[in-house]
Amino acid sequence: MTHTLVASATKEIIIGFDQPFCVIGERINPTGRKKLAAEMNAGNFETVKADALAQMAAGATMLDINAGVTAVNPNETEPPLMVQTLQIVQELVDLPLAIDSSVSSAIKAGLEVVKGRPLVNSVTGEVEKLEEILPLIKKYDVPVVAISNDETGISEDPDVRFEVAKKIVQHAADYGIKPHDIVVDPLVMPIGAMGTAGQQVFALVRRLRNELGVNTTCGLSNISFGLPHRHGINASFIPMVIASGMTSAIMNPCRPQEMEAVHAANVLSGTDENCSRWIKTYRDYKPANAGAPVVAPAAASQEKTGGRRGGRAARRGAAA
Amino acid sequence: MTHTLVASATKEIIIGFDQPFCVIGERINPTGRKKLAAEMNAGNFETVKADALAQMAAGATMLDINAGVTAVNPNETEPPLMVQTLQIVQELVDLPLAIDSSVSSAIKAGLEVVKGRPLVNSVTGEVEKLEEILPLIKKYDVPVVAISNDETGISEDPDVRFEVAKKIVQHAADYGIKPHDIVVDPLVMPIGAMGTAGQQVFALVRRLRNELGVNTTCGLSNISFGLPHRHGINASFIPMVIASGMTSAIMNPCRPQEMEAVHAANVLSGTDENCSRWIKTYRDYKPANAGAPVVAPAAASQEKTGGRRGGRAARRGAAA
Repeated sequence: MTHTLVASATKEIIIGFDQPFCVIGERINPTGRKKLAAEMNAGNFETVKADALAQMAAGATMLDINAGVTAVNPNETEPPLMVQTLQIVQELVDLPLAIDSSVSSAIKAGLEVVKGRPLVNSVTGEVEKLEEILPLIKKYDVPVVAISNDETGISEDPDVRFEVAKKIVQHAADYGIKPHDIVVDPLVMPIGAMGTAGQQVFALVRRLRNELGVNTTCGLSNISFGLPHRHGINASFIPMVIASGMTSAIMNPCRPQEMEAVHAANVLSGTDENCSRWIKTYRDYKPANAGAPVVAPAAASQEKTGGRRGGRAARRGAAA
Repeated sequence: MTHTLVASATKEIIIGFDQPFCVIGERINPTGRKKLAAEMNAGNFETVKADALAQMAAGATMLDINAGVTAVNPNETEPPLMVQTLQIVQELVDLPLAIDSSVSSAIKAGLEVVKGRPLVNSVTGEVEKLEEILPLIKKYDVPVVAISNDETGISEDPDVRFEVAKKIVQHAADYGIKPHDIVVDPLVMPIGAMGTAGQQVFALVRRLRNELGVNTTCGLSNISFGLPHRHGINASFIPMVIASGMTSAIMNPCRPQEMEAVHAANVLSGTDENCSRWIKTYRDYKPANAGAPVVAPAAASQEKTGGRRGGRAARRGAAA
């Protein structure tokens, strides 16, 4: 059984086929959020803090941290900003973090200050990138997101994307990095642009799980790009990728429809023991109208990271 | 490719892996609806008519018709009531019907009057039942729902349920009935009582599809029995069983959350070409609050049964 261990200073989480779906909160990311980029550039972390707390309250398993505020000279500006952002967030919330950057020096700087066992997001199949990132993964003994594109770009052919993922896993093995520390992102295309995007990713996730034995993740909302009522598409995509074997996603935990789908899929996958989290979260649920969900209470969601996934049991599992 | 053809007087529908999910409206069923049973017994079909129209408007692909109003002498009372109910419904709506009864004489009476190509619901693996129902299936050249229990009851072991389904398929072959005219119900247990119920049915549906080449169905809402906010569980179960290969379900199409999941899963399975039905249904969608769905407009849903699944293409497909 593949177990990827991530941890904050005191909390350990396992990503795995037999674990509740790992929700990686995507909100702390200034890419495409101009106002947040300007704030962070100016040393104002109020939105970062609010987003950290809100995502934790909504039930995020871990938080992605991106400090890519500028394309101008990122090698100098991004490392200190990544360090500052990580330090602020880990002071505030006790969730494992993902260090998200395309700048290797920012990842390295982040690895030096983050507590616990963060997830590095990401490496690709590009040789230069592999040779920059994999030594850091080995040195700091952390897991990494492997995105299945390389120098030739993102292939529309899922078999090519599988081969890129396989190449990364093999390359990592040369560094002594185990498959359970690689979380493959098979790349999700918008279904509105490519009608086979869903079938592609379901088949790819199954192969990645069965043939490479790796955990998987994705940028969840890509699937619904360009369509009306994106939350409805996202909320059905989640159970379908979970049924196909996906074990985590980078997504917005503050969307109740998507989080309800995560909670329900956990029940149906048998990873919400005795349905206890579902029952805690929804026992007093009152639909706004026939069959339509409203915002779910956050309190029960916060309990998700306690108990059976933490401590020694989790550590044992990660070694398995 | 397995294609099960069902038809009303003028409309043909295919149930198949490459087709939109077949929603079999469950509402016209007096079992457990005392008021409806009393009405039907008294010759009052107003609720039957209203339920037929409402289910069609909500996007049902076909309608299940059950006339089991009494356990007292059903062999005499149920056949004429089944005939009457079928005739009333097929005058009112142009959807294929399922003749749903545990009384063989009621199924036979229904087959004599129903137009098109109805689905018979159901046969089990019990020898007596097989010998009563399969000759009717052969004589009237109609498809049948095969429920995977037999004289020994409903096994909690999914391998046993698979073997019962296989036995029914083999028994049907002796009558010259093809696997594409058998729609297996693998039996869905409540997840609240059996934590593995979801994994069981996902694995069973995959085996039924890959090893027996049959279409599948289920009583959908069984999965959430006893849990709070059942619509949330149902709405995630639908994409998960569809991802596992299920092709139809007996369910309530008047629940917007469940139907939204069906529509979205069709998009994600690639059976809603160009996402056109999704876009028609949800293009003016306004959430009640952040991420929460409201009742979806019914108009676009009604278009679902037109066009590409009907006519000669459908007939050709059914023979494939």
